[in-house]
Amino acid sequence: MSTKSQLRREQLRERLIEAAEIRIDRDGLSDLRARDLAKDAGCALGAIYNVFEDLNAIAMAVNGRTFRLLGQAVGTSFDGGEPPVQRLIVMSTAYLHFADSNTNLWRALFDLKMTDDGPVPDWYRNALKGLFSYIAEPVEQLFPDLDRAEMDLMTRALFSSVHGIVTLGLENRISGVPPEQIERMITQVLSRIGNK
Amino acid sequence: MSTKSQLRREQLRERLIEAAEIRIDRDGLSDLRARDLAKDAGCALGAIYNVFEDLNAIAMAVNGRTFRLLGQAVGTSFDGGEPPVQRLIVMSTAYLHFADSNTNLWRALFDLKMTDDGPVPDWYRNALKGLFSYIAEPVEQLFPDLDRAEMDLMTRALFSSVHGIVTLGLENRISGVPPEQIERMITQVLSRIGNK
Repeated sequence: MSTKSQLRREQLRERLIEAAEIRIDRDGLSDLRARDLAKDAGCALGAIYNVFEDLNAIAMAVNGRTFRLLGQAVGTSFDGGEPPVQRLIVMSTAYLHFADSNTNLWRALFDLKMTDDGPVPDWYRNALKGLFSYIAEPVEQLFPDLDRAEMDLMTRALFSSVHGIVTLGLENRISGVPPEQIERMITQVLSRIGNK
Repeated sequence: MSTKSQLRREQLRERLIEAAEIRIDRDGLSDLRARDLAKDAGCALGAIYNVFEDLNAIAMAVNGRTFRLLGQAVGTSFDGGEPPVQRLIVMSTAYLHFADSNTNLWRALFDLKMTDDGPVPDWYRNALKGLFSYIAEPVEQLFPDLDRAEMDLMTRALFSSVHGIVTLGLENRISGVPPEQIERMITQVLSRIGNK
């Protein structure tokens, strides 16, 4: 394949991902249609399948970006001098605000169906590992006596707890509380956990 | 309307809910189709809309049942003599096992779109309130100093935390851990929180 056509493919890929990001952000993952993306990117419907296996693959690429943005938001929220519990609270609050400001993109991270039998892609596992490593540091400071396996479990348990509070907190059907109340819940739980 | 035709309507309603329950349980909420339900219940496609407003309303009725079953599973898991932290752990484990054994039905509780602008139905709020009242009791014992508003917030925070651990724990994409590990995570978090 010539370099020129490779470049064109790369540009089309990029345009499709951008179009999908805008649409997922605005309308949610479940409303994503290949037809609309072809129109947005100015290509024929069939041309999409020259650069992506399917619509799912485009959404996965958007999720890759979202994960990087989320990682930045969490990773730049603390200065490193905070006591560990405080750092966990600050990071969790950054997670909440990212989810609140980018609700549809953030939801897509968890709603997108992975190929049922296939393995979870490496970039997804790595992005998650990156997010977890931010949490692992204060967890190690808080619980120096845990062994590696217990530490990993605690890190995942804390992420999952905060994720649960944020998810249900942002769901109108459950409680529909304002973000300040969600912050209070996160603080309550994390302070108790860190209060040895 | 005659009593006989009322009875027939009631029976059709019941058959449709049963058929939807079987299908959601087996294939998940997103694969639910009115056409299939009409076939299962032995009625014309259009007859469905004489007894239900739409497919969503049938799924809501299934969720009502699932909530009752979940409430029973959680409400019968403890004997009342346990120390409060232990009781929270026992109830959470019952929640985990219900979610693990009835994954598609349990997911539907959270995945079903409520009418976007309409209010959340009363039965849904009441079912949730019932579930929360099981949690509120040990929370009050654990934290007698919290005022009513803080107690409510803590109750919701604990439910949300356990829900997050169960949800991500059962998701293959995140970690795909066996239920015993999920139980360990729940125990870790709840014991720390109760450890004043």
